[in-house]
Amino acid sequence: MPNTDDVLRDIDGNFDNTLRKLLELVSIPSISGDPSGDEGIARAAEWLKRELSSIGLTADVVQTKGHPVVLAQSIGNRNEKRPRLLFYGHYDVQPIGDLNQWKHPPFEPRIIEEDGLHCFYGRGTSDSKSQLWTFIEALRAWKHTFGEFPADVIVMLEGEEECGSQSLPEFIHTHRDELACDVAFICDAEMWSATQPAITTQLKGLVHERVTISAPNPDLHSGHYGAVAANPIRIMAAILAGLHDDHGRVAIDGFYDGVKDIPDAVRLQWRALSQEAGLLGDVDLTGGLMERGYSSLEAMWGRPTVDINGITGGNQGPGERSVLPGSATARLSFRLVAGQSPETIRQRFRNHIESRLPEGCLVEFEGHGGSSAVVLSRESPYLKAAARGLEKEWKTPAILRGTGGAIPLVEQLSEALETECVVIGFILPSDAIHAPDERYDSERLRQGARSWIRIFEEIQLQSDGKA
Amino acid sequence: MPNTDDVLRDIDGNFDNTLRKLLELVSIPSISGDPSGDEGIARAAEWLKRELSSIGLTADVVQTKGHPVVLAQSIGNRNEKRPRLLFYGHYDVQPIGDLNQWKHPPFEPRIIEEDGLHCFYGRGTSDSKSQLWTFIEALRAWKHTFGEFPADVIVMLEGEEECGSQSLPEFIHTHRDELACDVAFICDAEMWSATQPAITTQLKGLVHERVTISAPNPDLHSGHYGAVAANPIRIMAAILAGLHDDHGRVAIDGFYDGVKDIPDAVRLQWRALSQEAGLLGDVDLTGGLMERGYSSLEAMWGRPTVDINGITGGNQGPGERSVLPGSATARLSFRLVAGQSPETIRQRFRNHIESRLPEGCLVEFEGHGGSSAVVLSRESPYLKAAARGLEKEWKTPAILRGTGGAIPLVEQLSEALETECVVIGFILPSDAIHAPDERYDSERLRQGARSWIRIFEEIQLQSDGKA
Repeated sequence: MPNTDDVLRDIDGNFDNTLRKLLELVSIPSISGDPSGDEGIARAAEWLKRELSSIGLTADVVQTKGHPVVLAQSIGNRNEKRPRLLFYGHYDVQPIGDLNQWKHPPFEPRIIEEDGLHCFYGRGTSDSKSQLWTFIEALRAWKHTFGEFPADVIVMLEGEEECGSQSLPEFIHTHRDELACDVAFICDAEMWSATQPAITTQLKGLVHERVTISAPNPDLHSGHYGAVAANPIRIMAAILAGLHDDHGRVAIDGFYDGVKDIPDAVRLQWRALSQEAGLLGDVDLTGGLMERGYSSLEAMWGRPTVDINGITGGNQGPGERSVLPGSATARLSFRLVAGQSPETIRQRFRNHIESRLPEGCLVEFEGHGGSSAVVLSRESPYLKAAARGLEKEWKTPAILRGTGGAIPLVEQLSEALETECVVIGFILPSDAIHAPDERYDSERLRQGARSWIRIFEEIQLQSDGKA
Repeated sequence: MPNTDDVLRDIDGNFDNTLRKLLELVSIPSISGDPSGDEGIARAAEWLKRELSSIGLTADVVQTKGHPVVLAQSIGNRNEKRPRLLFYGHYDVQPIGDLNQWKHPPFEPRIIEEDGLHCFYGRGTSDSKSQLWTFIEALRAWKHTFGEFPADVIVMLEGEEECGSQSLPEFIHTHRDELACDVAFICDAEMWSATQPAITTQLKGLVHERVTISAPNPDLHSGHYGAVAANPIRIMAAILAGLHDDHGRVAIDGFYDGVKDIPDAVRLQWRALSQEAGLLGDVDLTGGLMERGYSSLEAMWGRPTVDINGITGGNQGPGERSVLPGSATARLSFRLVAGQSPETIRQRFRNHIESRLPEGCLVEFEGHGGSSAVVLSRESPYLKAAARGLEKEWKTPAILRGTGGAIPLVEQLSEALETECVVIGFILPSDAIHAPDERYDSERLRQGARSWIRIFEEIQLQSDGKA
């Protein structure tokens, strides 16, 4: 009778193959939120369906109004005695932004020895193709070793995480029976450091909003009319500059309504954590404009924010152009904490802009959906089993942490289906996710896959009453 | 012996040909300030050289460090008794901006009947290919009718007017002997209205400046770091919003040093003019943020300004992207009045930005050159002859006006070579210059060409002592 050490050996022995497959997946440009990525999205979904089928799951590419979900399950009737585990990942990736800022091509990953690691660069290497590949490889190895999966298994791979997960609520509603499970492992989160694992128990909500301000006129000659006619860039700049007060607080009326300050106990735990340097990686906070009265970790995990993600207006060409533009567009995102609803925040922002718009100018908003913040229980048995498993693999305790990121599915599953969620991942700040030269390294991939084996073992011990 | 009526008849009789040729010129995309226009620039210069040769001038395409100047002269030794007239125009055009905003293709002009006029649309139709075509056609018709030009003639057509005229000072210095003249007619200016001509006696100076603010980090995930790290768009927005005070005055230290307020006499003349509605065409000033205490005409012609012509930062794609960008760029232009020097204003702006830059952030500036404001004499004999000629053709007096626009050559010629300049043109606010669907109409082209014949006649009468 094999044991978990045999599975771990299987993972180590198969590792070249694991890595090769992952790089194949990374090379598919499955960019969401940009029509140029549609072909890559479709190809990545089919590719994953094949891989999931090959390890013994029944897999489908399920179409939605947006990008498809790859949904796979272990075959056969449900075993009421075995726990039912859902694994979530997303196969879509962020747009690459300015290609000139990449030193490595975004969709041609290869192994590079660097700082004693085997690194690979590419969009989606860290966020989130390596993440989903850890649990797929763990499931393969367990099945290969034991002849069966460690539990009833559902794998759900989303294709819209990077562009707002707009099809997710309907998908979950339609597939609520297939998705029903004892615990959902959401694998799209950060470690605490390169050597210490983490479980994320607090996530922010997210609202994206695009705002376009138009003057009463189309583009004009700025020499002739700049002194007198409305300039949407100038108007937009004034509005954006007024989004924060002198204390770094968001100056939108009612923005903090319902927000409770960070509880003292949580604040104390976080203050102890924030002694650790790893949280920020190489990120330099000089010049940052933080909310006054909070540590950087408290601001990142526990305070709601608004960020300007993009701005465009007037001349974009290489040369100069004396134009008074007809319109200007800004893209913003709000990161919410408990007590804030996406729709209320969106409406308050829109009211804020409309009340500051000069007469004669027009404003258009684009944006819908969004997610609320989630605070997960730190006491659930599955979370504790996962923490024990992670500690066994990494030989140091898993930190219970927060994040400034959002995973809309966590809200959907934990609130709509009342499913327990455990958020684990193996991302590091130095991975440059959402940025040029996103990267990952093979040792973290291997230990990530092995971590799941340790977690499966802890779950089995627990359901056998041996934990 | 033919007379000027014969020349006018020649212009009217040749008009289909004139129009056909002009549309041919407009169809050449001679965009300056963008490498994509280089081929069009070269082709337009050669085309104009051929046309100028065909009417009996010796013409050359003179290379510069930037775009070439087309320089043509009447053949033979200078006649000391005849006045020597220089005609200036520019054959380069603005970039087209967003093609989607054009209802008519920018480089495929054709005649369209509209509002009782024969209109044609395209980049450069008004600014400034129709302008230069008025005097070329007038010179052709005069030569054709009388067998000789009305005076010693120099034609100088620039290819860099829309991108800062950077090669112009050196060109003028090198060709100062060939350019020496009694008067330079600068044909790139506005009429007062569709029925009333104008001579521009006051021009603003112009300084372009590009500023890029960079955070200490490259692009980051805005969920993770938005609450704490520097956001160059937010910093840029605050700086741009602070460029004006609550009275609409430019808040850059020393910006108004040396600026004298508009003299009472000029202000009175302008106040009388500003009763006219034509100045603004269809432009709607609602929502404009003017300097307090000035009429719109005073602000446009007589007060220095700063305009934001473009802004770019972070996500530009169609989808959303949770990015905290590494940098943001703004493009600005300053319109100067007498007493301000381009270099001083540029330096004061740079000091202003640098003093407001958060610690750890970097700023880069791009921009050089620029032009000073020019106030021309309203009493010169050539200006008076031109005013009489215009009045004859349009049957209403020519308005002496100002402009918010800049023509760097006027500064160069009037100050460096001490040449008298007379600034005339047949542009209207409704021509949408620098904007999508730039347009012109054939009747204005015909009357523009005829206006020069009237002006030549007045100059001849004047030099014969008969005016």
